[in-house]
Amino acid sequence: MDIASIVDDIAAEMKAAPHRGRVADYIPPLACVPIDRFGMAVIMADGTCHLGGDAEEPFSIQSISKVFSLTLALGAVGDALWQRVGREPSGSAFNSIIQLETEHGIPRNPFINAGAIVVADVLLGGNEPGSAIAGILRFVRTLAGDETISIDESVAEAEHRTGFRNFALASYMRSFGNLLHPVDQTLRVYFHQCALSMSCVQLALAGRYLMAEGRNPATGLSVVSPQRARRINALMMLCGHYDNSGEFAFRTGLPGKSGVGGGILAVAPGVASIAVWSPGLNEKGNSQLGALALERLAARTGWSVFQPAGPSTSSG
Amino acid sequence: MDIASIVDDIAAEMKAAPHRGRVADYIPPLACVPIDRFGMAVIMADGTCHLGGDAEEPFSIQSISKVFSLTLALGAVGDALWQRVGREPSGSAFNSIIQLETEHGIPRNPFINAGAIVVADVLLGGNEPGSAIAGILRFVRTLAGDETISIDESVAEAEHRTGFRNFALASYMRSFGNLLHPVDQTLRVYFHQCALSMSCVQLALAGRYLMAEGRNPATGLSVVSPQRARRINALMMLCGHYDNSGEFAFRTGLPGKSGVGGGILAVAPGVASIAVWSPGLNEKGNSQLGALALERLAARTGWSVFQPAGPSTSSG
Amino acid sequence: MDIASIVDDIAAEMKAAPHRGRVADYIPPLACVPIDRFGMAVIMADGTCHLGGDAEEPFSIQSISKVFSLTLALGAVGDALWQRVGREPSGSAFNSIIQLETEHGIPRNPFINAGAIVVADVLLGGNEPGSAIAGILRFVRTLAGDETISIDESVAEAEHRTGFRNFALASYMRSFGNLLHPVDQTLRVYFHQCALSMSCVQLALAGRYLMAEGRNPATGLSVVSPQRARRINALMMLCGHYDNSGEFAFRTGLPGKSGVGGGILAVAPGVASIAVWSPGLNEKGNSQLGALALERLAARTGWSVFQPAGPSTSSG
Amino acid sequence: MDIASIVDDIAAEMKAAPHRGRVADYIPPLACVPIDRFGMAVIMADGTCHLGGDAEEPFSIQSISKVFSLTLALGAVGDALWQRVGREPSGSAFNSIIQLETEHGIPRNPFINAGAIVVADVLLGGNEPGSAIAGILRFVRTLAGDETISIDESVAEAEHRTGFRNFALASYMRSFGNLLHPVDQTLRVYFHQCALSMSCVQLALAGRYLMAEGRNPATGLSVVSPQRARRINALMMLCGHYDNSGEFAFRTGLPGKSGVGGGILAVAPGVASIAVWSPGLNEKGNSQLGALALERLAARTGWSVFQPAGPSTSSG
Repeated sequence: MDIASIVDDIAAEMKAAPHRGRVADYIPPLACVPIDRFGMAVIMADGTCHLGGDAEEPFSIQSISKVFSLTLALGAVGDALWQRVGREPSGSAFNSIIQLETEHGIPRNPFINAGAIVVADVLLGGNEPGSAIAGILRFVRTLAGDETISIDESVAEAEHRTGFRNFALASYMRSFGNLLHPVDQTLRVYFHQCALSMSCVQLALAGRYLMAEGRNPATGLSVVSPQRARRINALMMLCGHYDNSGEFAFRTGLPGKSGVGGGILAVAPGVASIAVWSPGLNEKGNSQLGALALERLAARTGWSVFQPAGPSTSSG
Repeated sequence: MDIASIVDDIAAEMKAAPHRGRVADYIPPLACVPIDRFGMAVIMADGTCHLGGDAEEPFSIQSISKVFSLTLALGAVGDALWQRVGREPSGSAFNSIIQLETEHGIPRNPFINAGAIVVADVLLGGNEPGSAIAGILRFVRTLAGDETISIDESVAEAEHRTGFRNFALASYMRSFGNLLHPVDQTLRVYFHQCALSMSCVQLALAGRYLMAEGRNPATGLSVVSPQRARRINALMMLCGHYDNSGEFAFRTGLPGKSGVGGGILAVAPGVASIAVWSPGLNEKGNSQLGALALERLAARTGWSVFQPAGPSTSSG
Repeated sequence: MDIASIVDDIAAEMKAAPHRGRVADYIPPLACVPIDRFGMAVIMADGTCHLGGDAEEPFSIQSISKVFSLTLALGAVGDALWQRVGREPSGSAFNSIIQLETEHGIPRNPFINAGAIVVADVLLGGNEPGSAIAGILRFVRTLAGDETISIDESVAEAEHRTGFRNFALASYMRSFGNLLHPVDQTLRVYFHQCALSMSCVQLALAGRYLMAEGRNPATGLSVVSPQRARRINALMMLCGHYDNSGEFAFRTGLPGKSGVGGGILAVAPGVASIAVWSPGLNEKGNSQLGALALERLAARTGWSVFQPAGPSTSSG
Repeated sequence: MDIASIVDDIAAEMKAAPHRGRVADYIPPLACVPIDRFGMAVIMADGTCHLGGDAEEPFSIQSISKVFSLTLALGAVGDALWQRVGREPSGSAFNSIIQLETEHGIPRNPFINAGAIVVADVLLGGNEPGSAIAGILRFVRTLAGDETISIDESVAEAEHRTGFRNFALASYMRSFGNLLHPVDQTLRVYFHQCALSMSCVQLALAGRYLMAEGRNPATGLSVVSPQRARRINALMMLCGHYDNSGEFAFRTGLPGKSGVGGGILAVAPGVASIAVWSPGLNEKGNSQLGALALERLAARTGWSVFQPAGPSTSSG
């Protein structure tokens, strides 16, 4: 069966799925997203694009932004970043503070909140928050080749007003000297990157460099080195779904990063960049139908990175 | 450069490496293994075999045996196993007991000691320990196609006499009802499987089904389904090196399982089954030169599962 | 109001109390104790004895025995004991193993299970378990002046058969070198001391040295030094009720040690040795009516150690 | 030996003590306090006052203020306070955040930082921070009968600028809804109460109600009920020295509360209110010589609350 039909089928199945999880309700702009939404975009290595469902409706990408900010920070400071953030799965929830105490303010990896806050602190780099925020937005627009991508200020503002746990994480790391800027400034960057509003199409476009040895296939320009692209994929596979990362890898066999807005970006190296979105979350905070859609996609296409025959041959 | 030369080069580099880690010294049979050993065996999908260094010298495979016992247990009880063991990285040391308390006696995954003890309890299945041990030995001999593989009784006996932490883990899980047999019997199975003595060649031969969609390429017989082979690989990648799993995946991009005897089994799906051995361990309890050798092998061959071009094309 | 009337009143109130907690049911000999029991014995400094309810019915003293074994161990090895056991409240449940991992096998205090197992190991002292058990029994009989006190072998045997958590704690400490004898032998001592069967009267008699500057008022002989008696009282106050110690101190203001059999030994220094018993436990594993009875006794007599007027004047 | 001589002797011994601990250096105003200082004030129930060393030199009382703020908060909201703060020893360092995560934002007791911040939040009560701060200052001045007691603004300001861990604790509790005011306002109150500057004499005067059944002996007015005074003493004994509380109770047998400025307030109920001060801290953050001085005082006077003869008779 060809990819287009697979995407069509999955989108139809997900639209009809009875158990859709629960929409995140900790801030009003997320709480009011209709639970019936499902979108999917699959962009192949050759540029072919397969869309399903609400693939063009923008949503809050939230933690998926951590992939892009990590990429930027590695570009800025290189492997020195790893002195301030670890590379191991945390075995804990996304916003746990326990591990920070026993490990002296060094977050376990850049995809839990604490780690992403350190990454935001790196991106701040002594400048005004607005400058770092503009840089992130510019980077994502360039990756996606779409200047219409924007940040939802109402989301950023709501996070800033109620994100006490993130203030706690940031203050805590600052007490260990692992935050160089005032908490409020670093979090301003963090909350704005999380408030990026993108559709599945835009997200899959932005993720192409991760399937294409670090290059943007549209421009041919290198975003990161091939080795770094592989390593970001490895981090996504091991840490991309918090304490549900093992389950996701077990079921789909693909690197992926989820966000509390219900989106997931997944990568089949050399084959496809994939974005799914459905706002209902499972009990671990990952998109319930998004994860299910990716599991079915991987099963029907054989795109698991652990598939012996190799992705390229089975994707035809 | 061809694989044979790459293996030769790496073996020579490792033989000469100055920093070799520390040999495990908690039991005499392990403590007396010479630190200068290094072996490597790479078995390609077509059956070609490339050896380097002490590839034919047997060593104690220890925790690598957990891959084989997990495979057997899944064959015995199927996915019901996952009601007694999790599938998430633990974020903790191999013998940590903390997580067991907060998660009510359910180990995080089958590759930490607690999880492997539950797996051994499954294999015991109401029979005598000797019967389960014989079953494991028979399975590994069949996988490797080598009837000379044996269990080192002196190792098993030493573990049994001094393995107080494993007794603690087993007793603790028994208090939660997650061990069905007397602690002493289950641990007898566990200590014997860990005492399997194998060379790199034998180990790489035994691991072939993990690169070959679950089939033993020598016999063409199915060991596990293709899906299960992929999933065991996913578990190895996320949990195969305890709280160093992220680092290993980041550096090599391959599923792998290490043992305190200094061995590592790694898999390049569709391409190669790889075993390395050097008894000196890093501070996380994984083979220092073994991990380095695999990192170099992956870098020079492009065998990372995250390599876009696909393993098969870059392995020629 | 005089003490006799106070005791009478409290016994009557407790007999009629509707909410009696839950009887421990983890071993059959404890599970079958009738929930309607309540006993109380108050022995004054001058030897006067006030009994209420089922004060002469024997029950399993369980963890209250830790006070007597600690006293014996301090007599045997003195303050060297504190190199193997701490003196701080644990903030955790009685059988938690988490703290042992982070503190390298040194239990937080001698009144949590792990600490009491180390104390039992000290009492074992290279001899046969039977010898240590006989020593503990002899000591308690002497303290109470009652040769009829005995150990309930059916309780000890049931604990031994099902006490997997204690096996885990002991094995775990042995892995840190903080247990000098085989786990099975040390636990034999521990399970037997916990199986001491005593009535409230016997228990209050045995506890007299703790109110009387370390002397047995019946014989005039010194059991421990006055300083050591004060210190054991301090330990009881801070650690005698596991993670409910603060609550007990807050409500009664008296040092006390509870047991899962429903007994509590409490001390009003210079004034009275008090034992209460009711088998129903609260959610923290302490006697629900026993704690309530002591709270009322302290309130009506003014026996709190924090009572400014001093215990002696208000006890008349 | 009479109390005056005991105080003289101890002050002389402490002045000459070679091992004085380390002065807290996390903010400049504390770091510059000379290590050679030692002061002691003992105020007897009859009003007699015994001073030793630098008893009249003001120092930053820091966490000792938690006793006074707790007293005020209990006056304001009564036992409803205990729905927001626990009454158990924490078994952890003063600024640990781990327990807050597992216990959903409810601090273990009012004497660890998190608990005292909740207490400050109660005192804020919807008013301006300045109003709450003035209320605390007024209360302490009244207790001590000394209108010259003041708050060191430079200390409060330095804490506010660098107290990231306290910001983390406050933000974290706010995320659980256990802080009702903006973090910055609650912490303003907290940092100011900690910056109270008092001498040993002033501190011992302020603590008199805790030895005198809740009454201020100078005025005869009730500060708290006798029961509440006993209970605050119980809390001080169980939780007054963080994870060193057991050690302090074991050695001195007195309720006490320490501060990182090197002061300790201790109470011998019915007998004396005692303040000591020496800026050098032990590894647990409590005054090294202060604790030693109290241990000697208790030993020489027999003022332990566990002293059978009763405090009143041995204090003559």
